[in-house]
Amino acid sequence: MPYVNIKVTEEGVTAGQKAELIKGVTELLAKVLGKNPATTVVVIDEVHTDNWGIGGETVTVRRQRGQ
Amino acid sequence: MPYVNIKVTEEGVTAGQKAELIKGVTELLAKVLGKNPATTVVVIDEVHTDNWGIGGETVTVRRQRGQ
Amino acid sequence: MPYVNIKVTEEGVTAGQKAELIKGVTELLAKVLGKNPATTVVVIDEVHTDNWGIGGETVTVRRQRGQ
Amino acid sequence: MPYVNIKVTEEGVTAGQKAELIKGVTELLAKVLGKNPATTVVVIDEVHTDNWGIGGETVTVRRQRGQ
Amino acid sequence: MPYVNIKVTEEGVTAGQKAELIKGVTELLAKVLGKNPATTVVVIDEVHTDNWGIGGETVTVRRQRGQ
Amino acid sequence: MPYVNIKVTEEGVTAGQKAELIKGVTELLAKVLGKNPATTVVVIDEVHTDNWGIGGETVTVRRQRGQ
Repeated sequence: MPYVNIKVTEEGVTAGQKAELIKGVTELLAKVLGKNPATTVVVIDEVHTDNWGIGGETVTVRRQRGQ
Repeated sequence: MPYVNIKVTEEGVTAGQKAELIKGVTELLAKVLGKNPATTVVVIDEVHTDNWGIGGETVTVRRQRGQ
Repeated sequence: MPYVNIKVTEEGVTAGQKAELIKGVTELLAKVLGKNPATTVVVIDEVHTDNWGIGGETVTVRRQRGQ
Repeated sequence: MPYVNIKVTEEGVTAGQKAELIKGVTELLAKVLGKNPATTVVVIDEVHTDNWGIGGETVTVRRQRGQ
Repeated sequence: MPYVNIKVTEEGVTAGQKAELIKGVTELLAKVLGKNPATTVVVIDEVHTDNWGIGGETVTVRRQRGQ
Repeated sequence: MPYVNIKVTEEGVTAGQKAELIKGVTELLAKVLGKNPATTVVVIDEVHTDNWGIGGETVTVRRQRGQ
């Protein structure tokens, strides 16, 4: 029954990587808390680098500086 | 003043269905809790089936199996 | 499979009212989008009036003015 | 270490405005709570006007009426 | 830089289990997407069983039936 | 009409500081995007330091080390 939301920047995450994240986090909740995988929901949000800020600036600007 | 967020998979939800969800949930909050519809906010997120997991796998994979 | 999050101020919402909200929103998603109630998840967050702002001020202050 | 999520309707917000929001909210948290800007995360979600409801109707419908 | 939110029912999750979830999900994001653990944020929300609905009813009611 | 959610660790944030955050972020959205303060909603979540992770560990553990 858990609900997990993963937010990452939109920078070429593949369908295979998404499947791996969903499988991994579902297994983690089963292992640590005994949660039933059948009702564990995982939602992945990919966020444009213009829309993600850290350190007071956008990730777009950081990437331009090579960070 | 309530805030409601509805997340569903991105599978052809029409503008009419979205309007119906917004109207229905706003009326529900007025009826059950006496909340003022004028300040009830509803946000609908449509999520790609690759980005939605349940049972440890993506909805894309489940749809391919006919689930 | 939908996920719904309802946020309201923490002002004496009863267990019965919460059950009514959960039932109502689950039925709405089944009626409008044909979603399966068995996997529809609803999470209600009750937020202290000090922590909810509208119009640039807290709900606590608005309640003191009788709003 | 704070996390801030800003949701607005998708109506031509520019990259410059997003950068200004991220800078402003990061500075606000530093000023009011002494939070470290380096680990303050801000995520902006732009939501289609069909998917945003207020007053029981979509913003699309309100915009058509000139609201 | 990822942000992860894990929501589970409030049913005696220990500080040790929370630490294990945080460590596990941070490692998963490093392994699958190469994300830097230093800026990976994880927030765990524990939700009262009265406030969590699935199948149109609260988890409180389900637990009373032994589910 | 914007909706803003601010998450910080639960470490003695006062009602006055919350009011200041709500006022500041509402003014920022009016200044940068011309948003109407009357319908700008801000919700502040205070999260226990056991439930907030960064760098793969809880804030509780970091605070014990003086970070």
